[in-house]
Amino acid sequence: MTATKGYAAQSATTPLAPFSFERRDTGAHDVQIEILYCGVCHSDLHQIRDEWGGSIFPMVPGHEIVGRITQVGSHVTKFKVGDLAGVGCFVDSCRTCQNCKDGIEQYCDEGMVGTYNGRERLTGAPTYGGYSTSIVVDENYTLHVSDKLPLSGVAPLLCAGITTYSPLRHVGVTKGHKVAVLGLGGLGHMAVKFAVAFGAEVTMLSSSPSKAADAERLGAHHFALTSDAETMKGLQNSFDFILNTVSAPHDYNTYLNLLRTNGTMIVVGVPPSPSQVPAFNLIAKRRSIIGSLIGGIKETQEMLDFCAEHNIVSDVEIIDIDKINESYERMLKGDVRYRFVIDIASLKK
Amino acid sequence: MTATKGYAAQSATTPLAPFSFERRDTGAHDVQIEILYCGVCHSDLHQIRDEWGGSIFPMVPGHEIVGRITQVGSHVTKFKVGDLAGVGCFVDSCRTCQNCKDGIEQYCDEGMVGTYNGRERLTGAPTYGGYSTSIVVDENYTLHVSDKLPLSGVAPLLCAGITTYSPLRHVGVTKGHKVAVLGLGGLGHMAVKFAVAFGAEVTMLSSSPSKAADAERLGAHHFALTSDAETMKGLQNSFDFILNTVSAPHDYNTYLNLLRTNGTMIVVGVPPSPSQVPAFNLIAKRRSIIGSLIGGIKETQEMLDFCAEHNIVSDVEIIDIDKINESYERMLKGDVRYRFVIDIASLKK
Repeated sequence: MTATKGYAAQSATTPLAPFSFERRDTGAHDVQIEILYCGVCHSDLHQIRDEWGGSIFPMVPGHEIVGRITQVGSHVTKFKVGDLAGVGCFVDSCRTCQNCKDGIEQYCDEGMVGTYNGRERLTGAPTYGGYSTSIVVDENYTLHVSDKLPLSGVAPLLCAGITTYSPLRHVGVTKGHKVAVLGLGGLGHMAVKFAVAFGAEVTMLSSSPSKAADAERLGAHHFALTSDAETMKGLQNSFDFILNTVSAPHDYNTYLNLLRTNGTMIVVGVPPSPSQVPAFNLIAKRRSIIGSLIGGIKETQEMLDFCAEHNIVSDVEIIDIDKINESYERMLKGDVRYRFVIDIASLKK
Repeated sequence: MTATKGYAAQSATTPLAPFSFERRDTGAHDVQIEILYCGVCHSDLHQIRDEWGGSIFPMVPGHEIVGRITQVGSHVTKFKVGDLAGVGCFVDSCRTCQNCKDGIEQYCDEGMVGTYNGRERLTGAPTYGGYSTSIVVDENYTLHVSDKLPLSGVAPLLCAGITTYSPLRHVGVTKGHKVAVLGLGGLGHMAVKFAVAFGAEVTMLSSSPSKAADAERLGAHHFALTSDAETMKGLQNSFDFILNTVSAPHDYNTYLNLLRTNGTMIVVGVPPSPSQVPAFNLIAKRRSIIGSLIGGIKETQEMLDFCAEHNIVSDVEIIDIDKINESYERMLKGDVRYRFVIDIASLKK
């Protein structure tokens, strides 16, 4: 076992604080990773506050992990000591169901094992995430990370990146498509970058006029203020796809109306209250709504390789670990452009 | 102009009663059709009672029309006098928008012209439907009908048939797929026949135990009672597609949970109140919901040809026109297996 330093929540009502724990020994198929950066995802906050139920405490959050391999197990073939590596939202799955076989382990019939707030399949031991100095992961759930990109900007690709890349690929976004991205946050800013990289004509839909300049900088071709009724009316029946990243309660119908015939709204945000969907809005134009959850290992690797090739990273604000609770407060107010990333060096001091 | 006998509602609160009116002369591109049978669609009732708003009175309902060509215009090339013919839910559209060019005139950007309760594009005159002795329609919005099938059973194909055929084709239902049909009525019974004909393994989901035998007779491989919690639990994550034909208020989520990963719920019914859709139920399995509206002319012809080839018709109860108001009351109670069809001979007496 390896002594590891981290930050953990001891309960749903306590702030994150220093926490020491042990990582398992590096098994035959495992790699041990010295963590360098870990992104801060909104779901970290949901889970430490037990807003989705079933949280396991103490909890070390973090599933946007990049680091360097420090040990490899005897049967490891894909990595060697010194390689850069990444770990995303899950570290295991059943490996035998059809979804696992199809490389969409995020939909594993038995449930994927979360990188944190999960339980190891064999031992039932709780999993601890990336707000820590090191992690031990099966090589098959570990990603290769290019040395061409700044590592801090790569970390959020492991969740915010793949969450937007995967559905845009799944629905086949390409040149000639008109794509709207709803909500400019951690997910939205990655969605804009990917949709632009895939050749689409991209419109940023936001309720914040202050984000217009950022939308342009990120590559969006158009910006539309969702509070402007005239603008919204003019955009009716316009888009082939809307990638809806909003996690606050909102009315899907306002945006469904912006889809043209055969248009699809992709939902990746989970608002606390469900939206009402009148069938007529779907039927009248053969519109659809589809949900999407992160991405499988194979596609996550494809996404990381795509980013290295196209020079795509997340826009980040690097923080020391002792600023994490403060950062959560700022994240809740949308005061981050567009992802906090913890410099894990600050945890080793 | 041709004097025509029909049945019309004079207002949203009066029953249907005999009504005399004139059809336009047969234009260069028109065919005149002597109507033989007309199906009774639930939307007829919605519109004569102005439940969707904007109803035009007097209203002669009916958009499941089969008959025989009695006159053809000078430029007509597709039909000759004596041919059997069908008319569905619309009789015109703009013909120039992309959807019209793509053969999906039901999604015409300018709106299709309903077979009744619509207005002719050039004259603005109200359109009158198939509860009448004859109709004049542009040949491009008229379908060929085979003489191999009983005409009374063909009439409902023009709406109930295409409404279920089109989405099952659109999503690609084929051998190997597990398909559930929710609701066994006019639409549902056609959906079962088509899904079976396409090679799928079909489960009928119904709240009526009394429909189990019918489901089997229609070709369904399984029957599941939606009120049986254990059965429903056992069907979770089972289906590739659910064709949801229910028009009564209901919770989509109960049925979304029955979809496996990448499963799709097709919505063709329009409940008066919208369903709530929690994003999580879509995201957790990359499920989708899609709406679909009837079908275009080309696909309606394809469906009619498919039915002739596979000996598929609607199960009908033939009525005389003077039973129409009584039939509406029975339809409201679900007391029809599975479509009323008016024998238009009863209107000529």
